[in-house]
Amino acid sequence: MKNPKSIYFAAGWFTPAQKQAYDQALAALTQNPTLNGDLSYVPLDHPYQKLDVGAHPEYLKDPEWATATYRGDLLGIKQTDLLAVIYLPKEEDVGCGVEMGYAHALGKPVVLVIPDRQFGEPINLMAWGPQTW
Amino acid sequence: MKNPKSIYFAAGWFTPAQKQAYDQALAALTQNPTLNGDLSYVPLDHPYQKLDVGAHPEYLKDPEWATATYRGDLLGIKQTDLLAVIYLPKEEDVGCGVEMGYAHALGKPVVLVIPDRQFGEPINLMAWGPQTW
Amino acid sequence: MKNPKSIYFAAGWFTPAQKQAYDQALAALTQNPTLNGDLSYVPLDHPYQKLDVGAHPEYLKDPEWATATYRGDLLGIKQTDLLAVIYLPKEEDVGCGVEMGYAHALGKPVVLVIPDRQFGEPINLMAWGPQTW
Amino acid sequence: MKNPKSIYFAAGWFTPAQKQAYDQALAALTQNPTLNGDLSYVPLDHPYQKLDVGAHPEYLKDPEWATATYRGDLLGIKQTDLLAVIYLPKEEDVGCGVEMGYAHALGKPVVLVIPDRQFGEPINLMAWGPQTW
Amino acid sequence: MKNPKSIYFAAGWFTPAQKQAYDQALAALTQNPTLNGDLSYVPLDHPYQKLDVGAHPEYLKDPEWATATYRGDLLGIKQTDLLAVIYLPKEEDVGCGVEMGYAHALGKPVVLVIPDRQFGEPINLMAWGPQTW
Amino acid sequence: MKNPKSIYFAAGWFTPAQKQAYDQALAALTQNPTLNGDLSYVPLDHPYQKLDVGAHPEYLKDPEWATATYRGDLLGIKQTDLLAVIYLPKEEDVGCGVEMGYAHALGKPVVLVIPDRQFGEPINLMAWGPQTW
Repeated sequence: MKNPKSIYFAAGWFTPAQKQAYDQALAALTQNPTLNGDLSYVPLDHPYQKLDVGAHPEYLKDPEWATATYRGDLLGIKQTDLLAVIYLPKEEDVGCGVEMGYAHALGKPVVLVIPDRQFGEPINLMAWGPQTW
Repeated sequence: MKNPKSIYFAAGWFTPAQKQAYDQALAALTQNPTLNGDLSYVPLDHPYQKLDVGAHPEYLKDPEWATATYRGDLLGIKQTDLLAVIYLPKEEDVGCGVEMGYAHALGKPVVLVIPDRQFGEPINLMAWGPQTW
Repeated sequence: MKNPKSIYFAAGWFTPAQKQAYDQALAALTQNPTLNGDLSYVPLDHPYQKLDVGAHPEYLKDPEWATATYRGDLLGIKQTDLLAVIYLPKEEDVGCGVEMGYAHALGKPVVLVIPDRQFGEPINLMAWGPQTW
Repeated sequence: MKNPKSIYFAAGWFTPAQKQAYDQALAALTQNPTLNGDLSYVPLDHPYQKLDVGAHPEYLKDPEWATATYRGDLLGIKQTDLLAVIYLPKEEDVGCGVEMGYAHALGKPVVLVIPDRQFGEPINLMAWGPQTW
Repeated sequence: MKNPKSIYFAAGWFTPAQKQAYDQALAALTQNPTLNGDLSYVPLDHPYQKLDVGAHPEYLKDPEWATATYRGDLLGIKQTDLLAVIYLPKEEDVGCGVEMGYAHALGKPVVLVIPDRQFGEPINLMAWGPQTW
Repeated sequence: MKNPKSIYFAAGWFTPAQKQAYDQALAALTQNPTLNGDLSYVPLDHPYQKLDVGAHPEYLKDPEWATATYRGDLLGIKQTDLLAVIYLPKEEDVGCGVEMGYAHALGKPVVLVIPDRQFGEPINLMAWGPQTW
């Protein structure tokens, strides 16, 4: 494939449906020959100091850790070609919103990936907008 | 007051708690002498073609209306000094996330306004980040 | 009028039809109460060193003068709220194109003002685009 | 060649002289070992939905097609290293102007490629400016 | 004066010559009718938490204080029309360099103000560049 | 090494200590397997028209040469992944300041590389700031 694109993989992982969509989407995108896995960015793979937040939730309240992780994610957006958002219209994630707004402001294409079982549900106006770029 | 600042008023209005916080915050900000009300931007005051979406929810599915309203809101962010987000940690709004990410990318200060009754609840890492600018 | 907007007045003045459209549009915009004339920018009013290029066309070939005038115009775009382009579909001006592309990249609204007698003529795709922002 | 650069190939194709210059320049650039052809972007190769506008000129009036093609071209500018403009001083193209202004605002180098037979003709001040970056 | 401009006053104050130039320049700029003093920004007037660093030099080593002061100064650059740098060719200040580079990247005009007694001394290439914008 | 990063090598070379730090740092960075030497940018390797300024110092006063070299360096910052600054707290260089401020405004990571023998010396607040991005 000539010129495969790198993506920033934006997704919530806080509810069972989000987790299921996360896993299915990541597996599917990994198979996609038009994407460049080596240059793509999956935020959960890049916590500051490689800390596993699932095992150490107390770090979410540590300002240094939180800021550095946030900044690292912004850098991931800047260094990839487009933002792929795993989007559940009925279980939206404010963090994905921040990533979408940031990407849009930088002029990056934003694509919503909606699981079949929630496809067709109304999409928040502000979440739909970044796709129109 | 010398040089009062204009704000973009970002807030959800989809749940009872959001609506209550919206009204209280807007009333309080209106009284704030360090803010310039004339130059501030309240998205609900600027629907495309002045359509009342509460009365005409079908417009939320109209691409022209949705895109124009979204773009108008982005312009509001660009033309104001800072983003004030009425933020309920337990009832987050993905639309506010988009506004926060967009404002942060433009280098605008972002301030979270948290109602007393939810103050102290954990804040999503990505929603907290834009404040650190 | 609350919050009148400042404009950058983009227009060719190289053909008789352009000159006529220029004069009519400038006169009309001057009357428009939603616009702020004091903060608006008319490029012909800002030649570098206040040189009258009509009287001294040799300056168009002077690199210092040309660069400084060009840079001054870009600054005019940056400091105004929107770009109003006096646009003749049948007598396009590449200079207005540069101004439109520049304004669009900065996220400024671009408005085409088309004289009645050329209204309805096909518009170049790339000239139409900046209006969609 | 180490680090060959990708270009966005900006050119009008509306007059016989423009078409001739287009073909000659594209052929010459393809041979240039300092350029990366795989990553370069030729707008006519990327119409929305791969529609051949020469065969279907009615699409130029279709807002969806026009907007998507325009946006795709802007993305091409963002993803290439520099803008090469096939520039005929006596047959300027407003579309190239938009591309030049946009590229300049993004901080991309702009290079005018002028056919021998029009070399030396006066260049519009605003078209010359983006080269100075 | 119509449309007076606001400035960001960039200057070192670490050597006797810098301090003298600082005072003379600030006094002169305050008298300048083309400048808007109310909207201008003098960094020393905006330390974080209004701390007097001269009296409390230990704060220079406090990360929170240092970051907040730095960020506040960047905001000052964003909110003013141009950067005036009190520049001593023989006693350059790296902090002014940061401010100049930042302002240039934002497209703000940068003006070097050079005291008479050092006027004519060679200027660092990188410090001269932002003025050419 | 997957995805090695390219750097812009910012450093003064005007004092003996700067020259020593320059040589040592460049040698060390060249060995670093996480960096991409081919895509990195060392300003002294890119003087305009390949002129050796050491041998021809008169060019530093030539506006064309100075502007072109300055612009070329900015382009180097835009095209690399991060800015590495060889930073001597006691012998700061205003040129590095300009590069740091410019890089920061573009959202590029900035890293200070401090020689052991000056490590621990106080760092100018404005020079420290760009690292916090």
